[in-house]
Amino acid sequence: MKVSMYALSAEVFANTLNNLAWFLEKAANNATQRKIDPAVFLASRLAPDMLPLTRQVQIACDLAKNSASRLAGQEPPRFEDTETTIEQLRARIARTVDYLKSIPASAFAAADTRDIKVPAGERTLEFKGLDFLQRWALPNVFFHVTTAYNILRHNGVDLGKKDFIGGGKEM
Amino acid sequence: MKVSMYALSAEVFANTLNNLAWFLEKAANNATQRKIDPAVFLASRLAPDMLPLTRQVQIACDLAKNSASRLAGQEPPRFEDTETTIEQLRARIARTVDYLKSIPASAFAAADTRDIKVPAGERTLEFKGLDFLQRWALPNVFFHVTTAYNILRHNGVDLGKKDFIGGGKEM
Repeated sequence: MKVSMYALSAEVFANTLNNLAWFLEKAANNATQRKIDPAVFLASRLAPDMLPLTRQVQIACDLAKNSASRLAGQEPPRFEDTETTIEQLRARIARTVDYLKSIPASAFAAADTRDIKVPAGERTLEFKGLDFLQRWALPNVFFHVTTAYNILRHNGVDLGKKDFIGGGKEM
Repeated sequence: MKVSMYALSAEVFANTLNNLAWFLEKAANNATQRKIDPAVFLASRLAPDMLPLTRQVQIACDLAKNSASRLAGQEPPRFEDTETTIEQLRARIARTVDYLKSIPASAFAAADTRDIKVPAGERTLEFKGLDFLQRWALPNVFFHVTTAYNILRHNGVDLGKKDFIGGGKEM
């Protein structure tokens, strides 16, 4: 049996974004407990030339939203990068997940062979849909969700692998 | 059109593991240039209660190998955790990729509905194959590859997103 491109893109992205929202909820509680300004977490980076937590979350959302849109052949909504609090970032994630769930699975019917172009600096990368999902969309979305998690772990937030995989829920 | 479970598991894992091997090659060169003992990178962690680079690489390999095996319904080979150098870790990755490529795509024919059990401490998690791939295998493999990358970035190794996505090759 084969599986749908929808299940391996929109559904996977929604799962991992819901887990990301859970990391941020734990981070907010952790900041309260330790009397830390949550803005410290949001501005934290793993290296001086890496992006801070706020941007990791925004980009994870955009990659999920735009990649699913490209695979479904529809124009993605544009979200402005205006978030300055954990609550606002969680709202953006919720908005992104709502959008992912709004795309009908049927829109992915021809997704595996769709021609997809991705602007990358001065170049334009060209993929077929399946290759785009394998080599671009999945690695990229998970990269930013994992990096957000790692920034929080590096700052002492009480997260574990169970949070990363199950968003704090029993699996 | 639907896609095969093989393409979204074994092929995706092999791609990201090949990229991981590339990060390690760049790390070895970087250590030479900066006159750093590469063992410093291998023992580095992002938090005191996170695993060091060596373990991140070993676990990324095992999760890819074992997840693909479970989906294909075959017994995975067992690799001992004996690596102490970057070269040895790169050899382990190569061995894992060879194994992934050795599983015939046809073995994944019933993968989406296969019953999969994963030992997790005192419990056993139970999945159907598709759910296992979506919520367990993909997030887990990308978690450890990304964390390995982040450890190297945190230690000043000259990696960028292009390395993460394309393993240093033009896409």
